[in-house]
Amino acid sequence: MKKYVYLFSEGNKSMKELLGGKGANLAEMTSLGLPVPPGFTITTEACHLYYHQNKSLPEELFEEVKNALGKIEEALGKKFGSTENPLLVSVRSGAPVSMPGMMDTILNLGLNDVTVEALAEETGDKRFAYDCYRRFIQMFSNVVLGIPHYNFERALDNAKELAGVTEDTMLDGEILKGLVDEYKRIVLKNSGKSFPQEPFEQLKLAIKAVFDSWNNPRAIIYRQINKIPEHYGTAVNVQSMVFGNKGNDCGTGVLFTRNPSTGEKILFGEFLVNAQGEDVVAGIRTPQPIQKLKEIMPDIYEEILQLCEKLEREYKDVQDIEFTVEKNRLFILQTRNAKRTAKAAVKFAVDLVEEGLLSREEALLKIDPNQLDKLLHRTIDTKVKLDVIAKGLPASPGAATGKIVFEADEAEQLGKKGEKVLLVRPETTPDDIHGMVEAQGVLTTKGGMTSHAAVVARGMGKPCVCGCEALDIYLEEEKLVVGDIVLYKGDILTIDGTTGDVIIGEVDLVEPELNEDVLKVLSWADELRDLRVRANADTPQDAKKAREFGAEGIGLCRTEHMFMEADRLPIVQKMILAQSIAQRKEALDKLLPIQQRDFYEIFKVMAGLPVTIRLLDPPLHEFLPDVSDLSIELALAKEKGELSSGEIAKREELLKRVKALQEANPMLGHRGCRLAIVFPEIYEMQVNAIFAAISQLVNENIEVYPEIMIPLVGEAKELAILKEMIVNIANKYEEKLGKKLNYTVGTMIELPRACVTADKIAEHAQFFSFGTNDLTQTTLGFSRDDAEGKFLPSYLDQKIYKENPFAVLDREGVGALMKIAVEKGRSTRPELKTGICGEHGGEPSSIEFCHKLGLNYVSCSPYRVPIARLAAAQSKIKG
Amino acid sequence: MKKYVYLFSEGNKSMKELLGGKGANLAEMTSLGLPVPPGFTITTEACHLYYHQNKSLPEELFEEVKNALGKIEEALGKKFGSTENPLLVSVRSGAPVSMPGMMDTILNLGLNDVTVEALAEETGDKRFAYDCYRRFIQMFSNVVLGIPHYNFERALDNAKELAGVTEDTMLDGEILKGLVDEYKRIVLKNSGKSFPQEPFEQLKLAIKAVFDSWNNPRAIIYRQINKIPEHYGTAVNVQSMVFGNKGNDCGTGVLFTRNPSTGEKILFGEFLVNAQGEDVVAGIRTPQPIQKLKEIMPDIYEEILQLCEKLEREYKDVQDIEFTVEKNRLFILQTRNAKRTAKAAVKFAVDLVEEGLLSREEALLKIDPNQLDKLLHRTIDTKVKLDVIAKGLPASPGAATGKIVFEADEAEQLGKKGEKVLLVRPETTPDDIHGMVEAQGVLTTKGGMTSHAAVVARGMGKPCVCGCEALDIYLEEEKLVVGDIVLYKGDILTIDGTTGDVIIGEVDLVEPELNEDVLKVLSWADELRDLRVRANADTPQDAKKAREFGAEGIGLCRTEHMFMEADRLPIVQKMILAQSIAQRKEALDKLLPIQQRDFYEIFKVMAGLPVTIRLLDPPLHEFLPDVSDLSIELALAKEKGELSSGEIAKREELLKRVKALQEANPMLGHRGCRLAIVFPEIYEMQVNAIFAAISQLVNENIEVYPEIMIPLVGEAKELAILKEMIVNIANKYEEKLGKKLNYTVGTMIELPRACVTADKIAEHAQFFSFGTNDLTQTTLGFSRDDAEGKFLPSYLDQKIYKENPFAVLDREGVGALMKIAVEKGRSTRPELKTGICGEHGGEPSSIEFCHKLGLNYVSCSPYRVPIARLAAAQSKIKG
Repeated sequence: MKKYVYLFSEGNKSMKELLGGKGANLAEMTSLGLPVPPGFTITTEACHLYYHQNKSLPEELFEEVKNALGKIEEALGKKFGSTENPLLVSVRSGAPVSMPGMMDTILNLGLNDVTVEALAEETGDKRFAYDCYRRFIQMFSNVVLGIPHYNFERALDNAKELAGVTEDTMLDGEILKGLVDEYKRIVLKNSGKSFPQEPFEQLKLAIKAVFDSWNNPRAIIYRQINKIPEHYGTAVNVQSMVFGNKGNDCGTGVLFTRNPSTGEKILFGEFLVNAQGEDVVAGIRTPQPIQKLKEIMPDIYEEILQLCEKLEREYKDVQDIEFTVEKNRLFILQTRNAKRTAKAAVKFAVDLVEEGLLSREEALLKIDPNQLDKLLHRTIDTKVKLDVIAKGLPASPGAATGKIVFEADEAEQLGKKGEKVLLVRPETTPDDIHGMVEAQGVLTTKGGMTSHAAVVARGMGKPCVCGCEALDIYLEEEKLVVGDIVLYKGDILTIDGTTGDVIIGEVDLVEPELNEDVLKVLSWADELRDLRVRANADTPQDAKKAREFGAEGIGLCRTEHMFMEADRLPIVQKMILAQSIAQRKEALDKLLPIQQRDFYEIFKVMAGLPVTIRLLDPPLHEFLPDVSDLSIELALAKEKGELSSGEIAKREELLKRVKALQEANPMLGHRGCRLAIVFPEIYEMQVNAIFAAISQLVNENIEVYPEIMIPLVGEAKELAILKEMIVNIANKYEEKLGKKLNYTVGTMIELPRACVTADKIAEHAQFFSFGTNDLTQTTLGFSRDDAEGKFLPSYLDQKIYKENPFAVLDREGVGALMKIAVEKGRSTRPELKTGICGEHGGEPSSIEFCHKLGLNYVSCSPYRVPIARLAAAQSKIKG
Repeated sequence: MKKYVYLFSEGNKSMKELLGGKGANLAEMTSLGLPVPPGFTITTEACHLYYHQNKSLPEELFEEVKNALGKIEEALGKKFGSTENPLLVSVRSGAPVSMPGMMDTILNLGLNDVTVEALAEETGDKRFAYDCYRRFIQMFSNVVLGIPHYNFERALDNAKELAGVTEDTMLDGEILKGLVDEYKRIVLKNSGKSFPQEPFEQLKLAIKAVFDSWNNPRAIIYRQINKIPEHYGTAVNVQSMVFGNKGNDCGTGVLFTRNPSTGEKILFGEFLVNAQGEDVVAGIRTPQPIQKLKEIMPDIYEEILQLCEKLEREYKDVQDIEFTVEKNRLFILQTRNAKRTAKAAVKFAVDLVEEGLLSREEALLKIDPNQLDKLLHRTIDTKVKLDVIAKGLPASPGAATGKIVFEADEAEQLGKKGEKVLLVRPETTPDDIHGMVEAQGVLTTKGGMTSHAAVVARGMGKPCVCGCEALDIYLEEEKLVVGDIVLYKGDILTIDGTTGDVIIGEVDLVEPELNEDVLKVLSWADELRDLRVRANADTPQDAKKAREFGAEGIGLCRTEHMFMEADRLPIVQKMILAQSIAQRKEALDKLLPIQQRDFYEIFKVMAGLPVTIRLLDPPLHEFLPDVSDLSIELALAKEKGELSSGEIAKREELLKRVKALQEANPMLGHRGCRLAIVFPEIYEMQVNAIFAAISQLVNENIEVYPEIMIPLVGEAKELAILKEMIVNIANKYEEKLGKKLNYTVGTMIELPRACVTADKIAEHAQFFSFGTNDLTQTTLGFSRDDAEGKFLPSYLDQKIYKENPFAVLDREGVGALMKIAVEKGRSTRPELKTGICGEHGGEPSSIEFCHKLGLNYVSCSPYRVPIARLAAAQSKIKG
């Protein structure tokens, strides 16, 4: 039979897929000689087996577990289920990718009515033993038997009231023993069975329950959000218990080897004296900062410092560690690469390079490009006088403003509608994730920097303020009280996750600036990458922003937005509704100087860099009033008899002409270069405006590199005809200037036919720019407007597509066509310049694909330029 | 220098591309020893040169012409421009593909004031010589100098009036000489130059004029209609003149070696005694049937009979011959493969095989599959009492009904709007072609079976009645008079091109039956072809028709039409607007027995043959009322205050729900299998109806071969999910029946993504059916609804696409994707069945492409099944 169980001493950190991240790390730490409580891992393959065998496990596997347990008993001189010195274990999940808090954990397993007495005797602490037992019963009953926590909590509260105490720790052994009896009655009542007393039976049930938890709803949601493949499965780690709650020489804590928020090289974390780990994570007792340990347990603190250094060297990354001190002895329960803010990620990368732990390439790969996005979010204008009503923990940086809501469901609903909301909760649980996803930010009144809300918000890059105890939340009345201020659902708050401030009302936010570390990292990326990075920008303002963020040109300047501006639209409409070429040209003549000015400004901002101007693309009816509105208006006006017959005739004529321009499928209609095939005068005006602007700049000695791009080409002849038109106009201007101009003519590749005939198209095109938004629509036959609102959610739910293909490039379909296009295009014109200007141009995994395809550049929104620069470098390093 | 001039004795029939059809045939006939007047051909390469050199020809070419002319002079003992025995020549166009009457011809070239006297002296016939001269001046002036005919005709009419005669032939030599002087004055007045007297100068100008005529408007239109490539160019044939107008032992005629209308093996043609060829073709004098020649010139008739047999053997086809008799000597001026009606084409093929002239394969290739269409057109119901008001010549078979119009322009305009019109003219000229194209049929009052109207109409397969002299046409008043009946523009007439009947009003038409010859030819085709032929049929009636026409199954049975029928639509709308699955299922339950009956009937008609059922495809809003109508109605009702507030709320709710189902781009919207991914219950109902129907038929011992087809699959997982659903339902019915059912599940391939991921899709699909209508829309990004009305005409005009890609498969784009799909699909599943069910499945050149791709079948409308059978066989033979 296959080996399904590995002792920690049998594994290592490379076995993550088999042992899960936690198991591999425990094994690695064990082999490094760190003080890890002994244990073993049941592999992810056992998880697959479990699901394949209809949620059952073979007896042979449990034999292996028994053997491994035997080895632990031997090492510790304890016995599982023994009436003397009994072995207790924890049972935890551990997937190949970390999913903190998403799956189930059971502690103190092995306790029963007999071993609890042995534990009490051995430790001489009846209170401790029964406290362990009652915790174990509650956890086991919840996880394995599905009995809700509140049943037990109510009993605990009753016990405390009866005893007249406020803290759990103030209950003595006898009371706790009674509480255990009460707990067992709750189990019998709720499950119809007695609480299982046989320790190995407990273990079997716990293992299965952990495997089950791989598919609990919150784990599924977490995997969806974090794109973790379902087929990974989880491993189960069975580890001998150590106790942080045996007295004041005990404790437990979590820490990061450096500050995961700022990146600072200083231990960051919290601990609780005389407590088990869950007390820290759950945020129920407010813990002390890790630095306090230096005073309370100086030796332990020193040991931790050395350990942290060792672990960072070993893992070449900042670590997130769980530890327990049992009777002044340090145990490491877990280590993993630390989750971090974007700022911290960048600082870690820079520092680890400077400390010689990482090469630049290794360091670049440690930064998630998507995270950089967060550095580009706005922060609160410091010059503004703020109405700060409270201060909490600065749990996840960035500022957010929104209407307050108190339920995750509501946050989700309103957020999806496009409303800006802040989720305000006493504390969050994994069941609140869907609401956090849709909220602008999260504010809690309980819990610390490592509480659920804080960890999850940092992972999502959402601003979060935690543990803001000055606030009182009344969930039922949906109100928030601070002193004499009362805020109701829908009132607006602002939070600053960088400072912890909670501010009343909306506040002006300022644009972020890239700090030195980011600039350094990006400069390394720039040195390494092959892919150039450009920006999509339609205005001089956007172009300026793009240059600031390091864009090496404009990859897409759309001209339609220029047509839409209020002062131009009437002229544009006249042009469209013209009934003769003469009328149309008259309107175009008025637009020409305006367009010329647009181009002049943009070229000027981008002096010395290439600028790709896309000629008019949308169908003309997009510039006209809505037919339905016009029809209703006209019908009503007629009914009311308020118009002259001449006016009615005029409106009827307008309606007729607007109707004539309507299309059944505008996406596949009369747009792109088809406009110019039928109405060449429109592009002629635009091209004249471009060359007139260039001529101006040439006369001012400003370098311009215009690239004129024809949209929606599907057949080489379209491009041939329009290129000839452009060249003829260019010749006119060149003659006037008496010199050659540096310009190129190319095309968007956004139709499947363009891809399969790219060899022919490349005869006329000096560059290809993949318009992957439209190429996705035509290749998949998905109208984006219709799909995202109607059937795409079902497609994602049913996993027909893993990702929204408009967000992440569909490599298998669209990508296959792009590959054909690049190959065919270069077969005709080896020097063909190729790029991408769809939204995918700013998405890291799509950028990696573009790199592999051998494109010359990606072009994306200015704010994603830094992300693209980093992603491009990573692609090169990985390649 | 390249050789641009070939004597007839230097060429042969294989040199069509270089010498044009006429030139190659004249050369061939010369080499066969036929009595062809000597001459030479200036090649199509000279035509290319002419256009490349900006409409000029090098002097070297004219030197070659002079040399060739010298050879002719030598052979005939005549001299060009000589005052004794002068050589006269004809100058004619001759493209690689016949374009009858489209380009220019000049006869009697070489005549001038001196040679005309020599000719008069030599022939002793001054009348003849001056008649030639005045004809030459008119023709040359028209073709080379652009002087309209009517100038000369007016002068001729004056001369006749002055002389008091009615026929041209009654004018004597002296009067004609005077007329020539008048003609020369007309030339001087209209062109500002004297009529050129130098014969070689005449020849040079004439050659250029013929090259120019390659690009005259009517030639361009003809090429477009007949899909003749522009780059072919025309050759020029210079041939010594023979004269059919030297007296009553002379004559000229045109004939077909067999009847080109019925296919009968009997000479078919006409001649005129003492006339030149143009007199016959122009339809000005009504000629005598060729059989009359047997009485008038029995030796010549016998010679012609022998010649016809020789030519048919040589060309392996029925010939269309022009001949002239000069002083009892026969000359052949031209021979070419005869244009023919569909009926004749089929009869020729059958007869030539039976006569041993052709193999079956050769015979099949002689039939244009598109022509077969005409055999399938309706004819007049013979049982109907007809109001025949006149009878003309049955010039092109088939019946047509329409509003009469008297101008080609108007026929074109109305025809393009979809109106059915008949073009009624005294006679037609090449300038009328655009009107004929758009008319249902053509009716003329002048001209014979070989007149322009007759020849062109047969070529187009349009019904035509010619030379209906009982009718009087008043063009200015746009009326038609027959006895005391007066018809005005817009009145309805029916013509029967098979009988020559002209009938007042609209007449019932009957379906055609395939005659024995056609059935024979189709049976040969069936034996040869690899491609199976199926039909697209949605009803039992269509299915019946399909079987009659030889369909080997149904390749596409659309189920949406079943939903549209009046009695079902309300249930369908309820289903669509349902607000819960329960409501939707309730409506679907009502539809199930109706669908079951539909399928039962169709399967029954197609017993023993495969039937491909496509599950629901269109977006649901297609079944709902129009939003704009609903909105206007509601707005008006509110304004008028005629509805209760409850009714308004109800209508507002309906409008809201209908609006919610609207789509920006329905073509790319929520349709096809996407419906079933979101609402699986719809396909479940359909699949249940299919298997319930099958179960019924199995119980009746009727063989059924259902193929269930999922539309619009773009990703393999869609198909996997839906196939599983189908198989589960099928299993249920199989269990009930206690036996396995013969069914397959496959998909339409109609998205580019399906093509490039066909290997994955084929894991689940047992067949692929290319939906080339939608695949064309997505590949080209052309919404058919929008393109054909808006920009496609410009695309065809500018030759960006050579053909409408919705009519003729775009091989380069769509075809490339189909090729990828077939290769990928078969790489996964070598036995994958592949077919096409778009409209292209009935278009011969597209069928040939499907054959080359190795598809298993094509599916087309029932009426095109015979065409597809023939085209499939031809593809095989050509391959």
